[in-house]
Amino acid sequence: MKEEITPIEEGSVTTPRGFLASGVACGIKARGEMDLALVCSERSGRVVGLFTENRVAAAPVLLSRRHAALGVGRAVILNSGNANACTGATGMADATEMAERVASGIGCPTEEVFVCSTGRIGVPLPMGKVRKGIDQALGRLSPQGGSDAALGILTTDTYPKKMGLKVGLGEQEIFLGGIAKGAGMIDPHLATMLCVITTDADLSSEALQVAARRAVAESFNRISIDGDCSTNDTVLVLANGLARNPTVTLESGEFRLFQSALSLLMGRLARMIVEDGEGISKVVEILIEGASDEGDAERAARAVAHSLLVKCSWHGEDPNWGRLMAAIGYSGAAVDKDRVDIFYNGVQAVSRGERAGTAGRLLREVVRLPQFTILIDLGIGSGHFRLLTTDLTERYVRLNKGE
Amino acid sequence: MKEEITPIEEGSVTTPRGFLASGVACGIKARGEMDLALVCSERSGRVVGLFTENRVAAAPVLLSRRHAALGVGRAVILNSGNANACTGATGMADATEMAERVASGIGCPTEEVFVCSTGRIGVPLPMGKVRKGIDQALGRLSPQGGSDAALGILTTDTYPKKMGLKVGLGEQEIFLGGIAKGAGMIDPHLATMLCVITTDADLSSEALQVAARRAVAESFNRISIDGDCSTNDTVLVLANGLARNPTVTLESGEFRLFQSALSLLMGRLARMIVEDGEGISKVVEILIEGASDEGDAERAARAVAHSLLVKCSWHGEDPNWGRLMAAIGYSGAAVDKDRVDIFYNGVQAVSRGERAGTAGRLLREVVRLPQFTILIDLGIGSGHFRLLTTDLTERYVRLNKGE
Repeated sequence: MKEEITPIEEGSVTTPRGFLASGVACGIKARGEMDLALVCSERSGRVVGLFTENRVAAAPVLLSRRHAALGVGRAVILNSGNANACTGATGMADATEMAERVASGIGCPTEEVFVCSTGRIGVPLPMGKVRKGIDQALGRLSPQGGSDAALGILTTDTYPKKMGLKVGLGEQEIFLGGIAKGAGMIDPHLATMLCVITTDADLSSEALQVAARRAVAESFNRISIDGDCSTNDTVLVLANGLARNPTVTLESGEFRLFQSALSLLMGRLARMIVEDGEGISKVVEILIEGASDEGDAERAARAVAHSLLVKCSWHGEDPNWGRLMAAIGYSGAAVDKDRVDIFYNGVQAVSRGERAGTAGRLLREVVRLPQFTILIDLGIGSGHFRLLTTDLTERYVRLNKGE
Repeated sequence: MKEEITPIEEGSVTTPRGFLASGVACGIKARGEMDLALVCSERSGRVVGLFTENRVAAAPVLLSRRHAALGVGRAVILNSGNANACTGATGMADATEMAERVASGIGCPTEEVFVCSTGRIGVPLPMGKVRKGIDQALGRLSPQGGSDAALGILTTDTYPKKMGLKVGLGEQEIFLGGIAKGAGMIDPHLATMLCVITTDADLSSEALQVAARRAVAESFNRISIDGDCSTNDTVLVLANGLARNPTVTLESGEFRLFQSALSLLMGRLARMIVEDGEGISKVVEILIEGASDEGDAERAARAVAHSLLVKCSWHGEDPNWGRLMAAIGYSGAAVDKDRVDIFYNGVQAVSRGERAGTAGRLLREVVRLPQFTILIDLGIGSGHFRLLTTDLTERYVRLNKGE
């Protein structure tokens, strides 16, 4: 069998063998939408968790981080509508109870269950509703439940984010699947990113760790909608080994292929999050080249992506490269303005720090597109960085005004 | 005479003895508004200039920085409607010509003239119009011209920013005056801050330097509207000595009083800039206390002031303290969430990282006010920082969409 990766657009966390899922509406959200999701493997497997770097981490993050350190996982329970953050000892007790209830329902140690929450900060969970919801979710677990689980974690997302992959790995076929939610909360809105990836591949603990970290670095760490890093961001990867392939280690020939598949899956889910960002009208890929090193390239890219003035001009379809120059100028990166070149989808706007003389019409044609790429070449070294971001719209402000 | 500082609300750069000014409409702006201002002392004096730290500095900044290093100043020529930034050798030649034309008009070395520009980046100045405008401005110089000069530097500001002060300094009366412009440009919009301060006080070069740096650190460096640091920010302080007071040195008893007056003047102008920020509806003072040091306090304050989610919730009059917790959590400052207290105008919202149990009504009453103060006590050390900022509105986005 030749090595190949085949996307399964309708796939999700239940695409890999031995994974069940469900989604239910338990009443955390006022309007009766789904707000609880459960993902579960038929047997325990390896797990890797990557969590927000925010120092005000939510209770479910603290609990899941502790469980992930043990490396063995069976299930993930996720709720939307409430972040269970800044909720003190009560919040920690509630997160623990969620894990315990799932563990007793499926029959595994509590340490093999992970908890994710997303929603308003500072409000205790309505545990009466959550308990009933967990019991319901346990009862509805099914190999077709991935779509419901994708729905159960949504907030202001306008569509569910899920995907599967089939990979020819040596003599075996293995599968990967994922669900994710993006930026925005209903009542009110907080940028939070949650993602659960499942695979039936058998991997060494080290191989899974390395692959997950690399894939996250190239996907979820390369997107920015509003620059707000949440208290709840979580990515979990569960591998149950049911494909019964020879264990993939860092030294295996198959590692590179698994890495490619995982990176592809997370990259697609990350792009879906950006494309469905709150109130956005443009998706913009920023490529920084010629920086003195990668750190400087990242600083320049993030300054551009975070600049309100830059984001507003994209929304207005104005190829205002002066604002790009200003943003890289204050980014902290080494910049010699007389060496900077800037291109919009390959059309040169800036040559050596000055306008390139291109007809404004050509540049405006690019920024009218719903998606375009801006390449900024600093002309100093070989550091480069890629970042996917969005414009800033009146609708974003309206959505996030809260009550 | 007792030491006292008396605000002159109608004052400006022409309040101190021996300063003339003018403002004209020379056609840089399409709609015929004033777009050129000239401030000039009858005789040369000391000067201090403080400039943007943006590495993509505009031509007038490069020129004025070089002139300011010589320490002697006579006049400042300022234009709005065009930033003369990213304009290469042409831009540098244009800025130099502006200084030369003013110098030859008033009869002083070119090095005693300073140039400030604000407006769109990347477009060469219409020098035909600028030359005529400078000649007109020279012809209209007058001791009552400060108000016109304040008008000539405006962009999307909705009112001119100017003020004067009378100070009893030992046996003498001295005067200070200032004009400033805030965030926003007409076609299109770029956050740029320009300020010219005049005084007839006689000070040593060192005393003027120290006083100016301290005053800027406490005023213009403590405001944030959209977090974008421009290519053109400039603060110039001219002291012509015509009050004929005994020279104030760092060791003089009068230094402290001069410092207070200059800090007061810049503080008032800085506040006017924030209050007139683009499209804003709220002015919010952020006080960080209990940080491990001042650097951490500043990081926490700036993270809060730059958070789109925080700014949107203020606009929506939602006392969403969870977003404040999230922002300090990712600020890079040392934070122990279980020690954080937060107060809105003294009403406690957060106690040791959890909701304080205050009635939501009391908090909502505070955030409905046009101006309020948020105190965040990190409960770790004694580092503190104060920052004045604004909300983010749909109107800001509309104003900055450009074309």
